[in-house]
Amino acid sequence: MDDETLRRLHAWWRAANYLSVGQIYLLDNPLLRQPLTREHVKPRLLGHFGTVPGLTLVYAHANRAIRERDLDALYVAGPGHGGPGVVACGWLDGTYTEVYPRITRDEEGMRRLFRQFSFPGGIPSHAAPETPGSIHEGGELGYSLSHAYGAAFDNPDLTVFCVVGDGEAETGPLATGWHGNKFIDPATDGAVLPILHLNGWKIANPTLLARIPDDELLSLMRGYGHEPILVSFEAGDEPDHVHRVFAEALDAALDRIRDIQRAAREDGSTERAIWPMIILRSPKGWTGPKQVDGLPVEGTWRAHQVPLPSARDTDEHLRQLEEWLRSYRPEELFDDDGTPLPDTVALAPEGPRRMSATPYANGGTIRTDLDLPDFRDFAVPVGAPGAEDGQATAVLGRFFAEVIRRNPHTFRLFGPDETASNRIAPAVYDATDKQWNAEFSPLDEHLARAGRVMEVLSEHQCQGWLEGYLLTGRHGVFNSYEAFVHIVDSMFNQHAKWLEASRPLEWRAPIASFNYLLSSHVWRQDHNGFTHQDPGFLDVAMNKSAEIVRVYLPFDANTLLSTYDHCLRSVDYINVVVAGKQPSPQWLGMDEAIAHCRRGLGTFAWAGTETEGRAPDVVLAAAGDVPTHETVAAAALLAQYAPDLSTRVVNVVDLMRLQSEDQHPHGLSDADFDGYFPPDVPTIFAFHGYPWLVHRLTYRRHGHDDLHVRGYKERGTTTTPFDMVMLNDLDRFQLAIDVLDRVPGGATRYAGLRQDLLDRRARARAYTREHGEDDPAVAEWRWGAALA
Amino acid sequence: MDDETLRRLHAWWRAANYLSVGQIYLLDNPLLRQPLTREHVKPRLLGHFGTVPGLTLVYAHANRAIRERDLDALYVAGPGHGGPGVVACGWLDGTYTEVYPRITRDEEGMRRLFRQFSFPGGIPSHAAPETPGSIHEGGELGYSLSHAYGAAFDNPDLTVFCVVGDGEAETGPLATGWHGNKFIDPATDGAVLPILHLNGWKIANPTLLARIPDDELLSLMRGYGHEPILVSFEAGDEPDHVHRVFAEALDAALDRIRDIQRAAREDGSTERAIWPMIILRSPKGWTGPKQVDGLPVEGTWRAHQVPLPSARDTDEHLRQLEEWLRSYRPEELFDDDGTPLPDTVALAPEGPRRMSATPYANGGTIRTDLDLPDFRDFAVPVGAPGAEDGQATAVLGRFFAEVIRRNPHTFRLFGPDETASNRIAPAVYDATDKQWNAEFSPLDEHLARAGRVMEVLSEHQCQGWLEGYLLTGRHGVFNSYEAFVHIVDSMFNQHAKWLEASRPLEWRAPIASFNYLLSSHVWRQDHNGFTHQDPGFLDVAMNKSAEIVRVYLPFDANTLLSTYDHCLRSVDYINVVVAGKQPSPQWLGMDEAIAHCRRGLGTFAWAGTETEGRAPDVVLAAAGDVPTHETVAAAALLAQYAPDLSTRVVNVVDLMRLQSEDQHPHGLSDADFDGYFPPDVPTIFAFHGYPWLVHRLTYRRHGHDDLHVRGYKERGTTTTPFDMVMLNDLDRFQLAIDVLDRVPGGATRYAGLRQDLLDRRARARAYTREHGEDDPAVAEWRWGAALA
Repeated sequence: MDDETLRRLHAWWRAANYLSVGQIYLLDNPLLRQPLTREHVKPRLLGHFGTVPGLTLVYAHANRAIRERDLDALYVAGPGHGGPGVVACGWLDGTYTEVYPRITRDEEGMRRLFRQFSFPGGIPSHAAPETPGSIHEGGELGYSLSHAYGAAFDNPDLTVFCVVGDGEAETGPLATGWHGNKFIDPATDGAVLPILHLNGWKIANPTLLARIPDDELLSLMRGYGHEPILVSFEAGDEPDHVHRVFAEALDAALDRIRDIQRAAREDGSTERAIWPMIILRSPKGWTGPKQVDGLPVEGTWRAHQVPLPSARDTDEHLRQLEEWLRSYRPEELFDDDGTPLPDTVALAPEGPRRMSATPYANGGTIRTDLDLPDFRDFAVPVGAPGAEDGQATAVLGRFFAEVIRRNPHTFRLFGPDETASNRIAPAVYDATDKQWNAEFSPLDEHLARAGRVMEVLSEHQCQGWLEGYLLTGRHGVFNSYEAFVHIVDSMFNQHAKWLEASRPLEWRAPIASFNYLLSSHVWRQDHNGFTHQDPGFLDVAMNKSAEIVRVYLPFDANTLLSTYDHCLRSVDYINVVVAGKQPSPQWLGMDEAIAHCRRGLGTFAWAGTETEGRAPDVVLAAAGDVPTHETVAAAALLAQYAPDLSTRVVNVVDLMRLQSEDQHPHGLSDADFDGYFPPDVPTIFAFHGYPWLVHRLTYRRHGHDDLHVRGYKERGTTTTPFDMVMLNDLDRFQLAIDVLDRVPGGATRYAGLRQDLLDRRARARAYTREHGEDDPAVAEWRWGAALA
Repeated sequence: MDDETLRRLHAWWRAANYLSVGQIYLLDNPLLRQPLTREHVKPRLLGHFGTVPGLTLVYAHANRAIRERDLDALYVAGPGHGGPGVVACGWLDGTYTEVYPRITRDEEGMRRLFRQFSFPGGIPSHAAPETPGSIHEGGELGYSLSHAYGAAFDNPDLTVFCVVGDGEAETGPLATGWHGNKFIDPATDGAVLPILHLNGWKIANPTLLARIPDDELLSLMRGYGHEPILVSFEAGDEPDHVHRVFAEALDAALDRIRDIQRAAREDGSTERAIWPMIILRSPKGWTGPKQVDGLPVEGTWRAHQVPLPSARDTDEHLRQLEEWLRSYRPEELFDDDGTPLPDTVALAPEGPRRMSATPYANGGTIRTDLDLPDFRDFAVPVGAPGAEDGQATAVLGRFFAEVIRRNPHTFRLFGPDETASNRIAPAVYDATDKQWNAEFSPLDEHLARAGRVMEVLSEHQCQGWLEGYLLTGRHGVFNSYEAFVHIVDSMFNQHAKWLEASRPLEWRAPIASFNYLLSSHVWRQDHNGFTHQDPGFLDVAMNKSAEIVRVYLPFDANTLLSTYDHCLRSVDYINVVVAGKQPSPQWLGMDEAIAHCRRGLGTFAWAGTETEGRAPDVVLAAAGDVPTHETVAAAALLAQYAPDLSTRVVNVVDLMRLQSEDQHPHGLSDADFDGYFPPDVPTIFAFHGYPWLVHRLTYRRHGHDDLHVRGYKERGTTTTPFDMVMLNDLDRFQLAIDVLDRVPGGATRYAGLRQDLLDRRARARAYTREHGEDDPAVAEWRWGAALA
């Protein structure tokens, strides 16, 4: 490498480190034109310096490589609180000022840049949505590789530099994240270059991967399917040596990536690729204070956060801070106005090649709407409501197959080995395969080097990949067993927070919504047992901002089609859709389904006995496919055996409709709510999830005192479908009994019917216990036949 | 190995496989005394045969090793739905009948054994709580190694055979679970022998680890710090060959473990141990049907669940089932009564050496109560309420230090690198160290080969280790940042389900409660930003059974001490405790704190202005430390500026008290609730978490219509502590305004005060934006001084 490049690399590195220390410490005097005083130092010292020098070193070298190789590159900073380093680089290359004109590229802008960091009204300490060039905040650790691979899918021209912290490397999601390399197709996907940054320490402990011998570490990376390149630096290493060694490693890695891609793309090689990765061993808090208060700091856990915690309080820390800042020789890096000198930023790529300005990191700007088929073409014909069975997710699978055909590069399905189990397959395999780049066997079916279906038995990977895929401008769906989507509760939370923090940022264009399809749900996990029964993800989802979260409970194939068409067109939401996969009654024809979904709820006039001009005695409400089935059956029982009762059946498909207008944009007005649920009429609500969620959503509604909710109350085991609803008092008999108990005088007036319903319930249970399956009279019950 | 042993190994294996197939398929005719007919076959065929033969092979060989080496051993079956194999082994060795006398060890017992499996009223398909010898259900995949290591800690005489499925091996928690070997101390802990069972397929896909070359797989295991032993079998391999090869591998592994332990225990070696592990490659559905309906089954994903799905429906499947069952030659394995022949079970160890009967797997039977110091000795003296600051978790740390001193082998603290950050350290390091068995550095502090504190940056590991530790009869605490405990939502759910399913099993003795300590909570994560702010774990917790879950919000050091003393004495609960780590006001002296915690809630008479004989105009309620502080401050503002208002201040420390008696055993009666919160008086409730949770708990209470809750409403960023409460309208000024707005005529009567409070609020915010810290007048506010 020539001396000029060396000098420029070092200048960038010093400048980025200087700007990072400045962000952590300084309120004012950004260029140290005056001697540093306590008043120049922030009252609260926040942010983490420890990881920064590694992040900025990689950034500087990536810049060189981008220029030399004309790369399109994305930078993912895995280590937490590494924000200052990434922000510094964005300011150096000019993007920061383009995005935030207030933060000029001069002394005043530098002052503002410093002041805003981790300051009230300012910016977070992570590579947050506010950070140009970021798709990965890293506030919660463990997802950098997942995001990186998600970004690389279907972006053949993209190289993702993914810095993995050795803290986050201990997390489960990251530990399995390495296997992402077994899915990347070198011909049609981009490349991920993981850089495992071993600086040896977490907040208060050494890191595991820094405390095993080199050969063990190299073995681990080879076992993960990588060709590792190890570079090690120590405090005080000559800068020229550092830059030469790291540049050599980076070039070797990028050469290897180029060779792999060339072989696959030009020579048609189908050999399994062994991708390179870099292990960067460097001191924590590198280039920072060696010793503070007589204790070693650089290269220890004491450098994790703020190496000089008392810079505002003690002369000695203040003196050390000034010495530290001056060690980067800012006067050689910035001109008199505080603008970076040409040599300081000579390595920065141009325009969108800057990692801070790449459109890949502002995916909404390159997102195109999906070319969607008319979902009506996939409709299930419904003659009489409930007369015939359909499988909602299987029907949706046929729709997805056509979406895949029309959008061969911008739509993927992600799932933890459950795409078939959830019945989305086999239909989708008419249109595509499962992507797989590990070894093949002649027994494999629908497995190919490239395909639209991504299956790995890690909900974390599915979630992280899809997030990365969406954040870089594409579309997709994550299907999961309902109970096990709790595995990614925290990732859901983080993505919701990312979307919410992105909203006020006008420069961030909207991205496609994150679409969940939760099937194999609580009511039909009878055969898999108690461990597989948990509808609580809805409760987690509803805690996040009303601006972001949507929850839908379509109850048959046509309502699922209508719902999903809407979801695939939406942006910046998280759509949680729960749907059944088992054969079950189809209730609404396509036109009715569309109207119902558009309203978000509606009355099943055919199911109730309410007549014009007479208020109902009771409302039977339902949300979810099994509750709808039981509610309709309960209404039928009442129609047959208590024909004088006036009943109304209401179904809620958009759960947010239950909330008030002021709580959620989908909320019904009180007047509309009262129209469906008259305040003086009892409502028996059969709900898919935990019953308290409905109370939480409706507690301010007029009729709430007479709203009675049945739902999953954590009673389950390995049994039959109807026994599951009986265990939780959600069965048709119990719902009908609830009605009798709640209508004034009902329990007395209908004492005989009530006893009969109890007896039927007992008989159904006894049948199940004896035969191991549901009584066919119950299992095969149909609305039409029951009334005939 | 001699022929007799070989014969016995094979007999056990055949018997266990036969019994497994029987469980999956048969309602009757368990010994095939009659030709098999459709009526003998279950109507619903559930369970997974694919993994069973591997599980039973390992079990048989472990039995031999236990006898030969006099081992105390525990068996952890990682693969999901492997229940039939484990149950079969427990029945063979007699434990099953001892535990469930109905399931006799004869033909009738075998019939019942078969029938109950995955049958309504029967047992689940996993190694569930119902399964003798199990501490690991495996319904949700990924936690086998974590449970195994948790069991091994402090059990030096225990060997844990942990079978890891290649499906679960793809999960994040399992992928990082291998690193558990870097924590095991060979001198004072037991051993874990992982057996990675590669049968190659998941439900519908190949597994990753089965589709990389052997050298890559071996490299991965070496990288994880293991010495791997690879054994591979194919369909049709001679049984003698199989048993010889596997026995050799197992003996080599156990020899190596013995050598490592001997070196550490007898020779005082401190060399880092490289523990053995076994990779067992074998066909999925081994010994099952080779082909079904013309398609290969044994050795493919088609063998994952039920290889002959139509055994009740088609003659051909029925014929194949009978052939398959007879291939195990049951007539050679069981006598005429159906009792296993002596040779079949000759390998079974005796009494508690049987893995199905080991007390380690029924930890409650060997659990001893903790020797607890008097928590009162750690009390913080409180003169006037709120006059002085304390750090609740730091005080608790001193208590924990003494608990550790008194219980050197049965109590551990688990945390993701946050024990220091959460302030439990440094106090605990007076009593112990952090356990670590990777490489050491001279810079390390409090790191030792054995110690009571376990730190790894994986909440999954912390949770899984503690579960394993508790399930084998010990005690412990998991401390975490509040936001990131969502990472283990799903593990929490599974543990709660385990505890609930265990309750009705009289033979399972109660285990110590799982204790969470959630600190670095939402209100004091101002400096870490939005990603670190999430109090929603409480909502997840409250969905689980009221019998299992307890939630406490102690608001100062003394209430935290009293709460934790209670938690450490309790059994079979999950105690979720949220507590602050920052210096904050101490409100109650020890005696008052004890009385308050015993009641679960109480009135702060000193903080309100209510007088004898006059009902309050308003109740100010709080739960959590920051809400309590703001509520007391609001009450002080009102006392000073609206002295004619009669206020009552109520604090809730036991959240379940808010529920009705019929919803939770801790629930207050309606009369008692009305005593605290009079129905005709507005209550302004300042809550630690999402406000809707309080509504969910109280919606049936008389005064609910006039209950107004402030809490975290997903507004946050990097800012100051007081700005955080202002952002969410939980600050003292807003609470006082809420009071004025809710007492009849208040907004008019106190219009001037209302405006003044709004102005103060605006000034506080402006100060923060300008100075980057809270206005000292607010930050240093104290109850006593404010009233002076």
